[in-house]
Amino acid sequence: MKEIKQTNRTKLKRLPKRGNFDRDVVNSILDEALVCHVGFVVDGKPFVIPTSFGRIGDTLVIHGSAASRMMRNLSDGIDVCVTVTLLDGLVLARSAFHHSVNYRSVVIFGQAEKIEDEAEKEAALKALTEHLIPGRWPETRPPNALELKATTVLTIPIEEASAKIRTGDPVDDEDDYELPFWAGIVPLKMVAGEPKDDGKLKDGVEVPEYVVKYER
Amino acid sequence: MKEIKQTNRTKLKRLPKRGNFDRDVVNSILDEALVCHVGFVVDGKPFVIPTSFGRIGDTLVIHGSAASRMMRNLSDGIDVCVTVTLLDGLVLARSAFHHSVNYRSVVIFGQAEKIEDEAEKEAALKALTEHLIPGRWPETRPPNALELKATTVLTIPIEEASAKIRTGDPVDDEDDYELPFWAGIVPLKMVAGEPKDDGKLKDGVEVPEYVVKYER
Repeated sequence: MKEIKQTNRTKLKRLPKRGNFDRDVVNSILDEALVCHVGFVVDGKPFVIPTSFGRIGDTLVIHGSAASRMMRNLSDGIDVCVTVTLLDGLVLARSAFHHSVNYRSVVIFGQAEKIEDEAEKEAALKALTEHLIPGRWPETRPPNALELKATTVLTIPIEEASAKIRTGDPVDDEDDYELPFWAGIVPLKMVAGEPKDDGKLKDGVEVPEYVVKYER
Repeated sequence: MKEIKQTNRTKLKRLPKRGNFDRDVVNSILDEALVCHVGFVVDGKPFVIPTSFGRIGDTLVIHGSAASRMMRNLSDGIDVCVTVTLLDGLVLARSAFHHSVNYRSVVIFGQAEKIEDEAEKEAALKALTEHLIPGRWPETRPPNALELKATTVLTIPIEEASAKIRTGDPVDDEDDYELPFWAGIVPLKMVAGEPKDDGKLKDGVEVPEYVVKYER
């Protein structure tokens, strides 16, 4: 296990058994998720914005319009908290109190850094596209100089990070097992439907394997 | 349309056509989502924590252990930003630059307020449970006095709020429509799998209709 060092912010004060500091676990959650929620502070007030992301080794990458408020704020190196959540199921207990959800989440604290180098920037954009749908990058027109200029790409080190996981059945109070209520798990999963082309394909273009077989 | 008043924080500076201030739209997104991401500031630093939630009219409710750091911080009435995101599909364009995702998100800014009244607290916990899975509350043991005491329930007004929505096909640059790449949408949906009981049901307890037919 490649353990991530705990800090005061990432250590779990309650339910410590749900905490996980194994880098492989953190990475596997990040790699399955499509969206992260980026938290930052402007004028003392919190903002939380959803965005897609990618991962290159121990670094998270996000991107956005160079004109966006979030990108300009984060480029200044302010503190950021990036959270990723996968929902795995409803946990239905006999008591209302013990209802829960099964989930896997990751929280990363740090500061973002802007990628200035063009080749690095393109590599990060490739990671973002391949994170969304592996196999796609070779079948796209790569970004041109203008597009690269219009895009801000930021990196956030996956260093002060932790995962939090709940799995398994509901846990009821001893007496409540006598109650005549159904209890258990309703599994949840993000699934892909049938791909739908935009009606403007060139003759002979077929839907690629990586699209047909897409799953998370 | 019941329009929500725009503020400097909720007004979209870029892509304003993605913004939506219709209360019914905001509510429909909130009602479909299972998890929100709660952002707040402690010692000047941002925290983003995922949690389940419910809605009572124009009020969001969240809950947690009275001992949790987040609940104690939010109970003090500090500024909070709650964000909810539904992912509807991958948007695969011919250019890497125009790749996107279809989504519906809501951002709410405000301050949380603690519910002190026991009856109001129980009503909010009912809303939380019924938000997770409608029809469940009557088939649970309601919270007792100790459980109510151990739980903090907070309300956040859905007042300074907005939705942001992207739908439909990719939009490519004119020249790129000549490229021999597949382009279109991969729809995504959260689906429920087969419910699995915890193996401790009383004889004769069947899986209820609201569990078997669960969908978001």
